[in-house]
Amino acid sequence: MDRHDQADAPGARRWIIPEGYIPGRSHGPAPELESHDACCVLNAGDQDAALAITLYYEDQDPVGPYRFTVPARRTRHLRYNQFDDPESIPRDTPYASVIESSVPVVVQYTRLDSRQAENAIMTTLGFPA
Amino acid sequence: MDRHDQADAPGARRWIIPEGYIPGRSHGPAPELESHDACCVLNAGDQDAALAITLYYEDQDPVGPYRFTVPARRTRHLRYNQFDDPESIPRDTPYASVIESSVPVVVQYTRLDSRQAENAIMTTLGFPA
Amino acid sequence: MDRHDQADAPGARRWIIPEGYIPGRSHGPAPELESHDACCVLNAGDQDAALAITLYYEDQDPVGPYRFTVPARRTRHLRYNQFDDPESIPRDTPYASVIESSVPVVVQYTRLDSRQAENAIMTTLGFPA
Amino acid sequence: MDRHDQADAPGARRWIIPEGYIPGRSHGPAPELESHDACCVLNAGDQDAALAITLYYEDQDPVGPYRFTVPARRTRHLRYNQFDDPESIPRDTPYASVIESSVPVVVQYTRLDSRQAENAIMTTLGFPA
Repeated sequence: MDRHDQADAPGARRWIIPEGYIPGRSHGPAPELESHDACCVLNAGDQDAALAITLYYEDQDPVGPYRFTVPARRTRHLRYNQFDDPESIPRDTPYASVIESSVPVVVQYTRLDSRQAENAIMTTLGFPA
Repeated sequence: MDRHDQADAPGARRWIIPEGYIPGRSHGPAPELESHDACCVLNAGDQDAALAITLYYEDQDPVGPYRFTVPARRTRHLRYNQFDDPESIPRDTPYASVIESSVPVVVQYTRLDSRQAENAIMTTLGFPA
Repeated sequence: MDRHDQADAPGARRWIIPEGYIPGRSHGPAPELESHDACCVLNAGDQDAALAITLYYEDQDPVGPYRFTVPARRTRHLRYNQFDDPESIPRDTPYASVIESSVPVVVQYTRLDSRQAENAIMTTLGFPA
Repeated sequence: MDRHDQADAPGARRWIIPEGYIPGRSHGPAPELESHDACCVLNAGDQDAALAITLYYEDQDPVGPYRFTVPARRTRHLRYNQFDDPESIPRDTPYASVIESSVPVVVQYTRLDSRQAENAIMTTLGFPA
């Protein structure tokens, strides 16, 4: 990576995650074992990334943008559970998300589901669009 | 995303998921903890997406199309368990799926396996072809 | 998919899965809940796919090819546990696999780990190379 | 793969994994069931791969490079838990990683989480950048 040429920063400016669902129950100590969806964002470049996340639902219009900053050369693991502006996300409800960034970033999606006594986890890269 | 130019809608018109297997048993309350395969589809564009899903098996000819609509600017999380036209999907049987859409969409595959007392989950993006 | 033009069959002729590890223990009834690694292959085209799988290890030369056929318009979910020609795969040992095919296919990797009382699962698409 | 032309070795020279988190607790016998993050690297080419891994955090400057070698025609499954030069990785702390290689390789990320009595697993390919 050429740290002096932002155009070479790795990643894409738009990422899509079709899966989203925050389980409404949890077992185990919060926050670490609280059921959650997260998007993990890496900004390996030299400029701060301004994120705008839009959520899509099955039965209502999209909601957003949810705005976050990922500073230069930092990662942030954002939990959808904690999104609250413009509004919190309903539990036990399917959604999808589009993450737009002012500079290239890389996005990965992870869920921890602790509805039952033992937690389950899953992850995938987002789709760079 | 240029919402006025459908050609710019994110995604692809054909997606492939080689893995598929609906566990024949479940623990926990249905439908949330019923064992299932799902394909999560995001249509972030301005035109409704007409989906045609074809299932491939190990020992028989392909079955389909299964038809669904994902309205403009909506997501749908489709459970294979509930597919019934042209026919339901046998349990405990390997299959694969090809999802074709009239407009670009993004597709992610997820399984919840609750055959044992505690559920397990896994996910991956589909392959855009 | 143009079923009359094999060049349009979806996928790639070489896929790579860096992760591989067959857990040496299992709980629950075999074969469904036996710990396993699997590669799920979809051949959506009109010609049979001849597969040649080579396994890479940490401490020895590659082993293979393991040969399989995926008939036209069929899927096969191959369990590495059952590979035995030219030799079986040692348990509890890291490996990686390269899947080469005579025609384009799509490959997804899945593990079921039932070493503990409740099973865990994970999946990802392979890397088309 | 043309084994005589390294330019044809499959993969990429830079891979990104936005997700990273080493759970601070474990159940079950170590090392196999110790909670861990791993990056699985396949070097299917004919030249040894010199890896330089840089870790990104939420609240501090990047750390690295962590240096490893993956010999020609070998895989290595590297556990982040065991990284110790230039420093070990704090537990229960989000991070991301950039893997740079002297020759093309393929990288997959896997986590085993055994904080609760039954283990959970997840995996995804890295992002080739």
